Amino acid sequence: MCQSCFFVIGEFRLSYNGVRTVNSSYLCVELLKHSLYLDSNMATSSDMRYFNWLVLLVQLLGVVSVVITAVWMGHFQGGFAWTEDPAREFSYHPLFMVIGLIFLYADGILAYRVFRNDRKLYIKILHAGMHVAALIFASVGLKAVFDSHNLVDPPLANLYSLHSWLGLLVVIGFGLQWVLGFACFLLPWLGMSIRTLYMPYHTFWGVTLLILATATALMGITEKAIFGMAKNGYSNHSREGTLINCLGLILVIFTGLVVYLVTKPEYKRQPAPDEEHVPLDN
Amino acid sequence: MCQSCFFVIGEFRLSYNGVRTVNSSYLCVELLKHSLYLDSNMATSSDMRYFNWLVLLVQLLGVVSVVITAVWMGHFQGGFAWTEDPAREFSYHPLFMVIGLIFLYADGILAYRVFRNDRKLYIKILHAGMHVAALIFASVGLKAVFDSHNLVDPPLANLYSLHSWLGLLVVIGFGLQWVLGFACFLLPWLGMSIRTLYMPYHTFWGVTLLILATATALMGITEKAIFGMAKNGYSNHSREGTLINCLGLILVIFTGLVVYLVTKPEYKRQPAPDEEHVPLDN
Repeated sequence: MCQSCFFVIGEFRLSYNGVRTVNSSYLCVELLKHSLYLDSNMATSSDMRYFNWLVLLVQLLGVVSVVITAVWMGHFQGGFAWTEDPAREFSYHPLFMVIGLIFLYADGILAYRVFRNDRKLYIKILHAGMHVAALIFASVGLKAVFDSHNLVDPPLANLYSLHSWLGLLVVIGFGLQWVLGFACFLLPWLGMSIRTLYMPYHTFWGVTLLILATATALMGITEKAIFGMAKNGYSNHSREGTLINCLGLILVIFTGLVVYLVTKPEYKRQPAPDEEHVPLDN
Repeated sequence: MCQSCFFVIGEFRLSYNGVRTVNSSYLCVELLKHSLYLDSNMATSSDMRYFNWLVLLVQLLGVVSVVITAVWMGHFQGGFAWTEDPAREFSYHPLFMVIGLIFLYADGILAYRVFRNDRKLYIKILHAGMHVAALIFASVGLKAVFDSHNLVDPPLANLYSLHSWLGLLVVIGFGLQWVLGFACFLLPWLGMSIRTLYMPYHTFWGVTLLILATATALMGITEKAIFGMAKNGYSNHSREGTLINCLGLILVIFTGLVVYLVTKPEYKRQPAPDEEHVPLDN
């Protein structure tokens, strides 16, 4: 961009001599602005080719992962129940965690990339709203697993596994991110400097916790595959085992694609010329 | 930077009139170059404050994770042996995978950030060399786990778990990355355009596979915790269970820090003025 600007200056230097070249400096500024704007738009149109297809693929993978989890729990693991049957209440745990802390979590992040031409405030509200829904699903999912441990006789131990430790960290981290994000970016009382300071951390932790949520899901799948299947069922290359391994792979591809979409510079949201000057990397 | 450049143009426009302003265009180019150089150096000195401490912390966490894995296998899981005792040969699997596909893998990536002032070619060789070492450890680690399944009576099934599927994908992906990276960036036959094209993919897949290697390790820890500990040992909040949960947390923090260090723009390597023009994001 700068080079094209200098090239233009060079042209004017050749064409006009004397006093008139004074104006080339101003012209340079305007052309550079124009060139910046054009470049960003050109990048948008040429590099955005695959964006919509990839977002569609992410949605498809998200839905498939939710369906597989529902089939796994509903068909292979005895179905769903509430507190009257704590062992089957467990079934809500993987299902609601995948819906909340993977699918809705990821789509809430993607909102900033998908609705790139809408008003920033609306996207913020959508982002925060989807993550409230994610938190509600996660809370019910957590209740389901604690109930399935506490309401059986004899009760099972809680929070002994690496899966539970990391899962709890993810939920707490996600909740903290929500509160800090709301306070910083939606409430009007904090200045731009705080927003600018916090933004890269909000983004980094948002993506990190999504990856960690997926890693926690993979550990959860491993635990349930070993505990929940009949003796040696997992090692017999059974249909259930193959299905849940595919679920794990789909979750990995889903999260990998989401991280790709939100970190690729060309896919980042461009500020509208008259938009409030808020960091837009999120 | 561009704004400071225009400010300079503006100054010259005010100070010099007529024909002399013609030269301000050239001056602008030189000042912009200078400004670019200064800005990058200023960012380097002020933003690099915590870099060395974080790299040191990563090394500490890497060593601790290797030591904990060795203690887990050596002390709690019966120690190490070779093919004469396949059950204990398994002990080399987690140890060599953590050394190779996490610690050496990560340090090989970090080489580009740590040796930022050395000649690019030397760092490339170091990067490739450390990843050869990582591949050797991974290969022996894979032999150990296959032996521990195949050489016992009756043999255990291979490649049925999500851990094994993802682990195999990581090793194959890592090997492919090495071959493609060597062919693209170390052999002289490929042109700059191919290098520029492949670089972002090499970087993205490098980081993605490191994260996936860590997620695979977490699943492996979960499997071994359930299979390898005495009945209900894991759920009794035993010392071994707590130790390996801590191992998992340390691996997560280790990988999180490495990803932070290699993706933070301020920590990226700056090209020396006379350095070959190769993309330096890696």
